[in-house]
Amino acid sequence: MARFAYVNGQYQPYGEAAVHIDDRGYQFADGVYEVIAVIGGRLLDEIPHLDRLDRSLAALSILPPLSRPALRHILRETLRRNRITAGILYLQITRGVAKRDHPFPKDAVPALVVTARRFKGASESIVSAGVAVVTTQDLRWHRCDIKSISLLPNVLAKQGARAQGAFEAWMVDRQGHVTEGASTNAWIISKQGELITRSADHAILNGVTRLAVLAAAKRLGLTIVERPFTVSEAQQAKEAFLTSTTSHVLPVVRIDQHPIGNGHPGELSLALRQAYLHQHGLLSGAFR
Amino acid sequence: MARFAYVNGQYQPYGEAAVHIDDRGYQFADGVYEVIAVIGGRLLDEIPHLDRLDRSLAALSILPPLSRPALRHILRETLRRNRITAGILYLQITRGVAKRDHPFPKDAVPALVVTARRFKGASESIVSAGVAVVTTQDLRWHRCDIKSISLLPNVLAKQGARAQGAFEAWMVDRQGHVTEGASTNAWIISKQGELITRSADHAILNGVTRLAVLAAAKRLGLTIVERPFTVSEAQQAKEAFLTSTTSHVLPVVRIDQHPIGNGHPGELSLALRQAYLHQHGLLSGAFR
Repeated sequence: MARFAYVNGQYQPYGEAAVHIDDRGYQFADGVYEVIAVIGGRLLDEIPHLDRLDRSLAALSILPPLSRPALRHILRETLRRNRITAGILYLQITRGVAKRDHPFPKDAVPALVVTARRFKGASESIVSAGVAVVTTQDLRWHRCDIKSISLLPNVLAKQGARAQGAFEAWMVDRQGHVTEGASTNAWIISKQGELITRSADHAILNGVTRLAVLAAAKRLGLTIVERPFTVSEAQQAKEAFLTSTTSHVLPVVRIDQHPIGNGHPGELSLALRQAYLHQHGLLSGAFR
Repeated sequence: MARFAYVNGQYQPYGEAAVHIDDRGYQFADGVYEVIAVIGGRLLDEIPHLDRLDRSLAALSILPPLSRPALRHILRETLRRNRITAGILYLQITRGVAKRDHPFPKDAVPALVVTARRFKGASESIVSAGVAVVTTQDLRWHRCDIKSISLLPNVLAKQGARAQGAFEAWMVDRQGHVTEGASTNAWIISKQGELITRSADHAILNGVTRLAVLAAAKRLGLTIVERPFTVSEAQQAKEAFLTSTTSHVLPVVRIDQHPIGNGHPGELSLALRQAYLHQHGLLSGAFR
């Protein structure tokens, strides 16, 4: 259970941590966020996350509310006060509080919220079994490269997946190509052994874990092809997996009703998971 | 200045009115809203607004937090406590507070916020001069018929318009058709005198004012064509105007660099404004 949240300059008891009803995050989804894994008291890939945060803020013309050193201090203090050494850290920045009106307000001060909590990543049994995904129409806006809190379509996609007993929804654009999962990036390995994932265009978030896995694949000598792939390609792939800050690399064994490969986690998927964990100084399962 | 806000069962002093940081409206844009004009102490088109609210909630599988009579009582009490007889009432319902996770939470209680404030509609001088709009790519998601708080692309479009000295942005889909404004519906009158506005598909919000203006146009005997129109059609139109709860009917006299008609508000646009105001028992300018 989280104990304290950092909210606009103060560490508040979690149950009372609140923002004003006119915060533009609440009325307009006018803000951005990051989720960072915490393992062994360490913020995993902290710098790439903060770099992406800066890019998201710049894309929306929101000024960072704090210098990076000040922000990094708050992240650590939030972990310390919540006694979190393994879990996730969440941070959100919005354009701040202003009388409700669509255009950017003149004098709003960007708002910062930071929370941390214990979180168990995918258990070894889930990794060993693999997960199912379903495909669904990608209803999102056209700047998914910005990590904004405008996440309603992601919520609906994820809920749709869970209602069908699946772990994740892979979203499909109007050309029939998979973009990404509701909160994860999507990958396949073709029968020819190519590692295929969509290039980082405006239709996907360029995941920090995505980049780390691309680097791991390179070190393993895999052929990497960054291009859109179709649902049918995915269903006929040799392997499939998804990546995210909290899932690391998670094998996908079913897409809609189609088993992937032999219906068990693929060899290369598991090798990439191991390489990812190794690269971050983690043993498999250390997240638990 | 607003004095009190209704927040989840309580009338709170406005400056302290707050919601929990884990409200899904703040983290996921997982909620809906309505804006209702208040004139002479009366909520304009209250029932159509509440009907649309119910449709938006149903589309997101959010249960109404209150019965309609209870909600209507709160709307009136919020007006009374804020001493508002002319202005706007804002109400927002989100899926409620839950530990952050994309799927619908099991036990969250939907959250309700209601505020009211004085608001001056478009002045007679703005109506007489007409307003400018700019066109911009429609970046929004594909269910704009749901009046959700997932408004970041609308914010960016409106800000882009204001930065160019325009009142509104008309958004253009990938087929080159105007969908609607960032917070208004878009209309043109062709050289043949047809009144043209996009049909109420998933790409636009079916405005309450839009429906009232369609009814007014029918009574005036205008030829009404509900279909998408292109930017070029709009720029070459005889007249253009926009509609919304707060603007009623507002003549458009410039689209990007193109003057519309003779560069002054069109006759039929003004006639429709008068008909709309008359139909609602309002004199022109009564909103001020």
